[in-house]
Amino acid sequence: MRIEIWSDVVCPWCFIGKRRMESALAAFPHADEVEVVYRSFELDPSAPRNGTERTVDALTRKYGPQAPQMMAQVDGIAREEGLDFHQDRTVHGNTVDAHRLLHLALAEGGPARQVEVKEAFLSAYFEHARNLSDPAELRAVAVEAGMAPERVDQVLASDEYADAVAADVQQARAFGATGVPFFVVDRAFGLSGAQSVEVFTQVLERAWAQSHPALVQVGGDDAEACGPDGCAVPQA
Amino acid sequence: MRIEIWSDVVCPWCFIGKRRMESALAAFPHADEVEVVYRSFELDPSAPRNGTERTVDALTRKYGPQAPQMMAQVDGIAREEGLDFHQDRTVHGNTVDAHRLLHLALAEGGPARQVEVKEAFLSAYFEHARNLSDPAELRAVAVEAGMAPERVDQVLASDEYADAVAADVQQARAFGATGVPFFVVDRAFGLSGAQSVEVFTQVLERAWAQSHPALVQVGGDDAEACGPDGCAVPQA
Repeated sequence: MRIEIWSDVVCPWCFIGKRRMESALAAFPHADEVEVVYRSFELDPSAPRNGTERTVDALTRKYGPQAPQMMAQVDGIAREEGLDFHQDRTVHGNTVDAHRLLHLALAEGGPARQVEVKEAFLSAYFEHARNLSDPAELRAVAVEAGMAPERVDQVLASDEYADAVAADVQQARAFGATGVPFFVVDRAFGLSGAQSVEVFTQVLERAWAQSHPALVQVGGDDAEACGPDGCAVPQA
Repeated sequence: MRIEIWSDVVCPWCFIGKRRMESALAAFPHADEVEVVYRSFELDPSAPRNGTERTVDALTRKYGPQAPQMMAQVDGIAREEGLDFHQDRTVHGNTVDAHRLLHLALAEGGPARQVEVKEAFLSAYFEHARNLSDPAELRAVAVEAGMAPERVDQVLASDEYADAVAADVQQARAFGATGVPFFVVDRAFGLSGAQSVEVFTQVLERAWAQSHPALVQVGGDDAEACGPDGCAVPQA
């Protein structure tokens, strides 16, 4: 089974949803046969590289003076999942470089490695207010997470994986997703948002049942065939 | 989409079924997204290498004096598919080496290459009465079909791919197949025997629909998420 998760590294509900999905997976009896792959989604492609404005200020400009309180409320919910959010300190900025590095991690280290880097990016942003839109800071976080510095530098200095990021975004649209997190299991089931652990468990069970089906027989069972006892001969 | 076809190179309905499936594919609008892979099935694993007995004599021993006429009847049906069968001249023998070479063709050349070799083997046996159970003759047919002589010799001189052949046979049993041809589409749909072009078309259409599903939505659409207009905030 494969779970694809469209997500942005600066999306609070993506981090919270990640934890809930992981809780469901931890209790799922076939977890060792489940592969998790992160797909790119950019909430704000127009956000600047090397951003300097605090997220809380950007959101206050956009939504008004209640923004700080709304963010604090989300921090509180994150805390229930064991996450130490400090959204009062995060810095608003572009995430395409982070997504390109997540593609690099997937290509060179596989899904398990990518999940570790994704966790490191989310934690760096939400728990440590590190600026992932600053290439030097992003590089530092990636290398701390165990990525090879040479390849990280190559990717950051080029536009490698930019097409992969764009393809992910396009695929999310094809699925009708307008926001994240967006979970797709076996390209058959879709979940929008940070659902409860119970809903995640439900989709795991349904997908498991569907991926272990008996074959559906098409056509009759009387078409000519050959078997250990010889070949059929049609009516003359 | 992937069509797996369990088949033996000395199975008349496999060649006839191959043509009918190909007719259905030729008219299928998404044929360029369909991959065909041949799987091994041995109708008579006890048949001798370097066989010398004509198939018609072996079948007459087994089924009685009506065997030649039955075979001629199948030749007539093959003719309707454009195939020039001469089952009065074919020689009964073992096919495991042919199957091992089909695995080699798949491993080194991919599915399209394997289909060409499969076609060459079936044609050599049914249309030209060549003895595929004779390693020298099998080698000649394989090389004429474009396979690299060195690798063909290596495989024939070893038991390379014997385990792959056995695994294929076991998988057919797991699907409940007792004869061939046996077609499995996307490990979801099964067809037994040389079905009509219409039935093959039907399974292609059903499998296409199933492999391009709308996602089944699990959970509500009100779970917290982030979108272009910002992140949801739960009720205080």
